[in-house]
Amino acid sequence: MSTALQQTLSVTEAAEARRSIRVYESTPIPREHLHEILRVTGLAPSPWNLQPWRFVVVDDVATKALLQEAAHGQKQVGGAAAVIVMYSDMTNAIDTVEETVLPGMQGAAREKAVKEICDTFAAMSADDRAAWGFAESNIALGFLLLAAQAHGYGTSPMLGFQPDRVKAILGLPADSRLPAMVSIGIPAEEGFPHHRHSVERVARFV
Amino acid sequence: MSTALQQTLSVTEAAEARRSIRVYESTPIPREHLHEILRVTGLAPSPWNLQPWRFVVVDDVATKALLQEAAHGQKQVGGAAAVIVMYSDMTNAIDTVEETVLPGMQGAAREKAVKEICDTFAAMSADDRAAWGFAESNIALGFLLLAAQAHGYGTSPMLGFQPDRVKAILGLPADSRLPAMVSIGIPAEEGFPHHRHSVERVARFV
Repeated sequence: MSTALQQTLSVTEAAEARRSIRVYESTPIPREHLHEILRVTGLAPSPWNLQPWRFVVVDDVATKALLQEAAHGQKQVGGAAAVIVMYSDMTNAIDTVEETVLPGMQGAAREKAVKEICDTFAAMSADDRAAWGFAESNIALGFLLLAAQAHGYGTSPMLGFQPDRVKAILGLPADSRLPAMVSIGIPAEEGFPHHRHSVERVARFV
Repeated sequence: MSTALQQTLSVTEAAEARRSIRVYESTPIPREHLHEILRVTGLAPSPWNLQPWRFVVVDDVATKALLQEAAHGQKQVGGAAAVIVMYSDMTNAIDTVEETVLPGMQGAAREKAVKEICDTFAAMSADDRAAWGFAESNIALGFLLLAAQAHGYGTSPMLGFQPDRVKAILGLPADSRLPAMVSIGIPAEEGFPHHRHSVERVARFV
């Protein structure tokens, strides 16, 4: 499978080609491919450029086995070349706001922006803050699935796992939230064809 | 701007080109382009193929003006060729589960799948159910932003609006949740260059 070719997949082609894949070739994923997929993922927008998403990429066999246990034994966890555990970490996102404020903002404008961000999140409950970061991270998850497909990799985003066990296995912060555990690798099955609502069924034009 | 050319944007190109755009040309967006962007958006995955996302696409001037008021006067609402209000509607998603269960499932397997889905959501609180649909819809929002860019359109996903006012203006269900109001049109500004965390800053490899 030519990665160079796959990189030319358009957004439409990637969305059409993508299916949830649960059986993978054992071929490992080169680190630079994973790096590039996460770089593209990180281009997702977030209010105030806060980028609350974080990732642990697991290809270690023993750790994948532990994650599989925490995911009710789902075989696509241990059987994938890698598993990307995506989490949002609002504590870290707010701690690093000086890094994410746009560099074009300087002086008083910069101080004002930092203060506005910190004040906004300080006024929220811990739960609401976590829910906010979780929602924004799900947008980036959409980018991740398309970026992986465009590079020739199949994925299966999973919600069926015990978040507290996964946090313990990977040493994630207690207040982090996990949009998905994503298995990724070269597909060894076709997956199910799409069966989607028509646009007319889900959209109204005013 | 050639739409045919723009449709060839790869996932990486679309992610790199996309910036939040707040000033647009007045050129209207052909209905078939909006339709195609929403078709690609709808290819986003969701557990059990539930597809809880719904859309109202507004290009009516008077309705855009009302939405702008509900969005604290943000000019990119009234000034965009169209505004896509995205919402998740779990009540409707569960009511239409017979339409979304994969057609390959028939007989007892189909009945079992429908029952499992209905039982799972019936066991949740109304808030948890709404939060679930909201999270999945944010994945589709990632698809929408890339699909729009690939078709030559700039976007600005906004969270700064009064959801209850927007629901009242558009007649959305009270229990729906709104991932974003997205202004969309041909860009008339460049937007800010990306300023993102490095992959090394947000990812750990195990």
